[in-house]
Amino acid sequence: MSEAPAPSPHTHPIRVYWEDTDAGGIVYHASHVRFFERGRTELLRAMGVHQSATVDRSEETALLFTVRRMEIDYLKPAFLDDLLAVETSVQDLGGSRVTLLQRLTRGEDLVAEAVVTVVAVGGNGRPKRLPPDLRARFVALQ
Amino acid sequence: MSEAPAPSPHTHPIRVYWEDTDAGGIVYHASHVRFFERGRTELLRAMGVHQSATVDRSEETALLFTVRRMEIDYLKPAFLDDLLAVETSVQDLGGSRVTLLQRLTRGEDLVAEAVVTVVAVGGNGRPKRLPPDLRARFVALQ
Amino acid sequence: MSEAPAPSPHTHPIRVYWEDTDAGGIVYHASHVRFFERGRTELLRAMGVHQSATVDRSEETALLFTVRRMEIDYLKPAFLDDLLAVETSVQDLGGSRVTLLQRLTRGEDLVAEAVVTVVAVGGNGRPKRLPPDLRARFVALQ
Amino acid sequence: MSEAPAPSPHTHPIRVYWEDTDAGGIVYHASHVRFFERGRTELLRAMGVHQSATVDRSEETALLFTVRRMEIDYLKPAFLDDLLAVETSVQDLGGSRVTLLQRLTRGEDLVAEAVVTVVAVGGNGRPKRLPPDLRARFVALQ
Repeated sequence: MSEAPAPSPHTHPIRVYWEDTDAGGIVYHASHVRFFERGRTELLRAMGVHQSATVDRSEETALLFTVRRMEIDYLKPAFLDDLLAVETSVQDLGGSRVTLLQRLTRGEDLVAEAVVTVVAVGGNGRPKRLPPDLRARFVALQ
Repeated sequence: MSEAPAPSPHTHPIRVYWEDTDAGGIVYHASHVRFFERGRTELLRAMGVHQSATVDRSEETALLFTVRRMEIDYLKPAFLDDLLAVETSVQDLGGSRVTLLQRLTRGEDLVAEAVVTVVAVGGNGRPKRLPPDLRARFVALQ
Repeated sequence: MSEAPAPSPHTHPIRVYWEDTDAGGIVYHASHVRFFERGRTELLRAMGVHQSATVDRSEETALLFTVRRMEIDYLKPAFLDDLLAVETSVQDLGGSRVTLLQRLTRGEDLVAEAVVTVVAVGGNGRPKRLPPDLRARFVALQ
Repeated sequence: MSEAPAPSPHTHPIRVYWEDTDAGGIVYHASHVRFFERGRTELLRAMGVHQSATVDRSEETALLFTVRRMEIDYLKPAFLDDLLAVETSVQDLGGSRVTLLQRLTRGEDLVAEAVVTVVAVGGNGRPKRLPPDLRARFVALQ
């Protein structure tokens, strides 16, 4: 049993704009999906993965993360001008598969929670093993 | 055991435009969420529920459907210009809660599959029992 | 002076969904931009141009239309569930440049009007003369 | 002739995410429209206008800014991961009307330029004179 404290999740702030809301007066439920994706992108950036560099499918180095499955629980509405945060941590790690736990918060409120499974794919669109250095960084977030 | 045939799911066509794609060359994963919502809206319209009329929160008749939970499996990529279809059927029905099974297809291909739980809420944002006539229409789709 | 009647503009229907609205209770002003783009895409499709086929930048046949300038006047608000139409006609035609006049209508109401200049570009991103057969189809819409 | 230096425009940073791009590999042209709106929202916030507070249409204090006209020139493509900035300054000021000049930049590059006319409206949707203190703040940005 590890006595090490759980690592802090990666956190990224999100401001709610008009574009994110709908005529019900709250944040539209597909906007949360965009917010979670920004959190994953910023996590990757913090790990040194610049997706604009790895999107090139003709390169040996091509590496993209494709969403395979997503579960989202919507717990509280969010509103125009809210300052939210996306917290991302690693729940499970396979050869080419990473399952992330993501929480969208507003201060103490939990707005939504997501479990998102992404798969690393290469230039041909097929699953690709995570490079060891990247895997090590995901392990550190578990 | 019922010998009645399963009812046909409600079906709504979706054309993929530039707005739905991303720099990976495929449909962005939050676009599927918008597509599924269009399918639910068209299902409600076919049932006689016009949400623009029921959104008014000062009315006795206010009735909105809020998404509480969503599970999506992304099975195949979709592309610019694809003509897709959203099929929607009822998986489970509670007092104010409806769980829908939705499939996004391209011909024979299953592009994505979703289980979406929505809750009927009134003008105060609290859960509201489904009106009997509406409930009957959901039952017919089970 | 030509006695020929003006050609009918190309028309494409647009249904307003939750995704298109904002917390002001009306259609968000960037949604009109997406609607106009759908109208242009459907115009091209009606002319036989399938952009999913011409997006491939490695092909000799690569042909994309890039928006260079857009003027939009917002005249009346549009609302959830509205059934709108995008009308598109050709205002001006250059070697590689097409200026389109687009109207977003709801029955007799003019919701918004746009003048959009697009430029045909090839696989290298540089302007490319319109192929003669495509030019002829644009001329017919003037 | 004024010898006062031109005021610095209000500046707001924008990171480009997957959601902002399209299958052409660049930022989708309606995304710029969302970026410019974020710049205007942040300008208003810096002026002390919190739109989530002023959206309430039943209040005497209701004040919204509606887009009436927009001209955008698209000058250079933007790409995934780009760090852009929106600069906003006041070009013209009427009783209830404000015309803003907005520039979307990437370092030294001018990506797009917009002239956007917004109109202050009250709870009834009709134009409303700008309150004197807000007008004074817009004047300071001219």
